[in-house]
Formats: sequence, C-alpha cells, structure tokens
Amino acid sequence: MSEKISLLECQKRIAPYIHKTPVLTSQALNEIVGAQLFFKCENFQRMGAFKMRGATNAILQLSEAQRHKGVVTHSSGNFAQAVSLAAKSVGISADIVMPTNAPEVKQNAVRGYDGKITFCEPTLKARENAAQKIVNEKGATFIHPSNDMDVINGNATVAMELLEEHPDLDYIFAPVGGGGLLAGTALAGYYLGDNCIAIGAEPAEADDAYRSVLSGKIELNESANTIADGLRTTLGSINFPIIQKHINVIVTVSEDEIINAMKLIWERMKIIVEPSSAVALAAVIKSQNKIHNQKVGILISGGNVDLKNLPF
Amino acid sequence: MSEKISLLECQKRIAPYIHKTPVLTSQALNEIVGAQLFFKCENFQRMGAFKMRGATNAILQLSEAQRHKGVVTHSSGNFAQAVSLAAKSVGISADIVMPTNAPEVKQNAVRGYDGKITFCEPTLKARENAAQKIVNEKGATFIHPSNDMDVINGNATVAMELLEEHPDLDYIFAPVGGGGLLAGTALAGYYLGDNCIAIGAEPAEADDAYRSVLSGKIELNESANTIADGLRTTLGSINFPIIQKHINVIVTVSEDEIINAMKLIWERMKIIVEPSSAVALAAVIKSQNKIHNQKVGILISGGNVDLKNLPF
Repeated sequence: MSEKISLLECQKRIAPYIHKTPVLTSQALNEIVGAQLFFKCENFQRMGAFKMRGATNAILQLSEAQRHKGVVTHSSGNFAQAVSLAAKSVGISADIVMPTNAPEVKQNAVRGYDGKITFCEPTLKARENAAQKIVNEKGATFIHPSNDMDVINGNATVAMELLEEHPDLDYIFAPVGGGGLLAGTALAGYYLGDNCIAIGAEPAEADDAYRSVLSGKIELNESANTIADGLRTTLGSINFPIIQKHINVIVTVSEDEIINAMKLIWERMKIIVEPSSAVALAAVIKSQNKIHNQKVGILISGGNVDLKNLPF
Repeated sequence: MSEKISLLECQKRIAPYIHKTPVLTSQALNEIVGAQLFFKCENFQRMGAFKMRGATNAILQLSEAQRHKGVVTHSSGNFAQAVSLAAKSVGISADIVMPTNAPEVKQNAVRGYDGKITFCEPTLKARENAAQKIVNEKGATFIHPSNDMDVINGNATVAMELLEEHPDLDYIFAPVGGGGLLAGTALAGYYLGDNCIAIGAEPAEADDAYRSVLSGKIELNESANTIADGLRTTLGSINFPIIQKHINVIVTVSEDEIINAMKLIWERMKIIVEPSSAVALAAVIKSQNKIHNQKVGILISGGNVDLKNLPF
C-alpha cells in the first residue's frame, strides 16, 4: 500500500513541473488493429519525452544540501535532456557525461537546457568513471536513468494520467529498454487500474528484458542493433524485481515491424514519435488477435528524432 | 448580417461530419516569436486537412436530385481527398479528375475514400474539360476547391472554432493559395472576432494574392516554384472580393523561410504539417516586430506530406 501512496505523492509533487500530455485516438488505427487504442503522447512532454517525469521526481526529492551540490548523470539520449531541464526548472546545476560520439543535435539540446557536458570515451565503463569523478569532486548526486525508485515512480505517472482519463483500459503497452518506464507502468496498472494488464514491448534485436523475464535473472544484450535507440540498455537491480512481479508478457518485434508502426503513426496520426515509441504500437499490432475489441493504452515515450536521418 | 447567419448555419450543418480539431500552443515557439501563438491543427482533421470542411458544406447543400447524380472536382491535392471522403460520408458518388502525373500516394488516398479517378493531361485546360465532360454525361455537380461560397463558408469554420476557444485573438494568419481559406478566415474574423485582424501568408514564389490585393484585380502567377504545393493556385471571382474587402495585409515569405518554419513546427511541436501550413508560421516570424506580445492564431491547414520527400 505504501507503494500506491508513493505513486500518488509523486504525481502531486511533479505536477507543477511537467505537462499533462494529451491522449489521442485514431479511427484509422483502431480499424487496422481491431481494438480501441488510446495513445498517451509523451512526445508532447517538456523536452519531448517521458524522461522529464522521472528526472523531476528524483531532483525534487533532494535535500537542500544536495540541491546545492547539483546532480550528475550519464546519457547520450533523452535522460540527458531531462536531467538538464529538470535541474534548470528547480534552479540547480546539472553535469551530463556524454560519449564523444553523441550526435551534435543531442549535445546542443543539453546545452540549450544549461546542462554542463563532460565528454568521455563511448564505453559504459568510461561513462561511469566520468560520472563518479564528478560525484567525488563536487559532491553532486548521481541520478540513474532507469534503475532508481524515484525515477520509476515519476515514470509511473504517464500510465496514471492515462488511467485517470480511461479507467477501464484492459491493457497498457509500454516500450522496455532500461526498464524504468515498464516498471512504473506495471505499478500504475496494478495499483490504479481496474484489472489492467501492463505489457512490455521490446525490439527483438535487444530482447534482454524478454529473456530476463523467462530466465528469472537479468540477462544482457550481446548486441543491440535496433533503430529504437532508447531501448538498447538493459534492466537493473531495482526495476527488474518490479517487472518480474507484475509483468507476464513482453512482446518482441522486428526492425521492419518497428519502422512500419512508426510510419503508421506519422502518416495516420500526423504526430512525430521516435522509433522507441513505435515499438509499443508494433507490439500491439503483433498481439492483435489477443486484444480484439479491447481497450488498449499505448505509451508514446517521446518524439526526439533526427529529421535528417529517418527510416522511411 | 446574412453572411454571419450563413457562417453559423454552416458550422452547425457540418459539425457531425468533421473533427473539432485541437488548438495547440508551444512555449518554445512563443519565446522565439515573442508573442502568444495558438495553432489550430487541421492536420488532425479527417483526411488530414481543412479542405474536409468546405467539401462537406458544399455537398450537404445539394438537393436530393443532385446528390443522386454525384459530385465531381479536379484536384491533385487535398481537395480530391476531401470531396471523396465527404461524398462517401454522405453516401453519394464522387468523380475526381487528376493529372496523369499526380503522385501515387495521392491517387491511393482518393481510392481509399472510394473516389473514382479520371486521368487527364497535366494542364488546367485538360482538367476543366475532363470535369465538364463528367458534368455533361452524368449530370454530376462540379465543386470548385476554393472559388465557391459554400466551400468558403465551410473553410471559415476553422477560424470560428479557434475564436470560440480564444475570443480575444488580435490576429489570425492563414495561408493563401486559391483564396478559399483566407476568404473564410476573413469572414470569421470580421463577424465573430473582437477586432481580430486576418492576415494572408503567401510564398513569394507564388505571390499572386499579394499582387492582386495591391493592384485591385486578380493577378496570375507566371511560375509557382514553391515547396508549398497547396498554394500554387490563384484567386477566383468569388473569394477575391471578400479578400479585397477584409484583408489589408498579405505577408510573402521565401522558400528558406517556409522550410525553416516547417522544421521549427516539426522539431518543437512534434506534429507533422505540410509546407503550406508552415507558410503561416513563416509569415508570423517575419511579422514578429508588429505582433510583439499579441495573441496570434495560426491556421495549420493540413498534414499530408510525402515522408519520402522531405526538405530537411
């Protein structure tokens, strides 16, 4: 029960700092899938992705003394922007460790939110070392992009808002990369849904979560050659037990299925979503026999794409 | 006064057949422009563009006898889809004359809405002849894409809905091609706004409306090499007098300004808009000194783009 209270307190805490994003529907896609789809559009969230929620919740939990020393994370993706903007909103400093090969568009976005970039070699080890060095030198607080209970609770508010508008959803499909969004969605569905089943959607090319749920331990990816760049990471020790407890099904989809789903959303709904978001619709399409005529929530995780590098 | 009644009756008439589209805002774009912007998103309209409104209003005005014989138009763009879908919604047949070089994606869209395509040579004369032939043979009613009072009134409902949500707009910027949307917007602003000024936005490469308003007669384009493919057409005898009476300013913008505005909308708002819609934001940006701190409506006319052929 305390988990439910944590979720409700978190939602209240971050509300002034985030957008309550719209839920869109599409008759065309309902007809294609044969179900009633409800798209929760975090591509319209501040900085363009749901990551704003978890980053904000983590930062708002810091003590005055901690705030004074700032925060640090390592990310080349949306979490880098989320921590930068959330820190700026609260008035504290953010150090972001990025690999030297991070796209310039992402570097500029971080700088646009006053994040201070430290570059490192493009390996996980180098990232972690660089972040740890900043923690040691400045006393800054490290925030993990997905394996952090405050981040997970923040992420849960996506599905919470969706369930507030549509309390009778049968399923919610969420993409799974590091596992922070899926864990949050699982908690929201369990505590606030009405027999709502959360389902993970994962690229077959980075199917560590699928294999982890089967084997009962955290599996790694040997490679992660997926266009869904937000979903290349692996599960962590905090979110995996939540996923194990609440998630029974993870649907894996091919790269073609991801691109096809992305094109459907762009062409039929006229909204810009990133490949990681399209993974959720791709999994819905793959499951269409099982969800026939059901009410299905789909978490559109973000809309930050490089328009110069589209898969169409 | 009867013009105002026509507008209100039209709005009521077409309501069951169209979407009431959302009005979006963007803090990022407000900051860039230095004004409060309200985007009326007809890219989310049925078939993806405002043209659905005018086509629907024209078709709903037909007598039973006329409905029985169907409708015909010539268009390679959004109006072809609009007439097809509006006719299908009302349960009558639609003949669409398209040039042989019309993109396959547009032909397929028309067929998807059960429009019956007749191909002709890609000249205005050939189009008109082919349409007239169908009128003669079938007794079908010809509907002009922009120079038709029922179409103009239908188009006016875009700005009417926007003004219902935001009655205190100082300006509304609408793109101008054939003049049907701008004429409708002018009427809506005049009869339903509170000192709301409608402004036309036009590509400099197809600036016939700009020159027509200056000279007091309908000017033609010698060429129309603009990416805003919906705005290459010229004004007509029915919409031009309305534009002359109510529109004082038409802002022309370069191709670079259009592409820059389109990119801003895609990247910052995460919505897909066609180049013709971006012309309106480009004109707003060009006018930013004059509209500083004002409330400005922007008509996003549609979102039908070929994802394989983007200008970024």
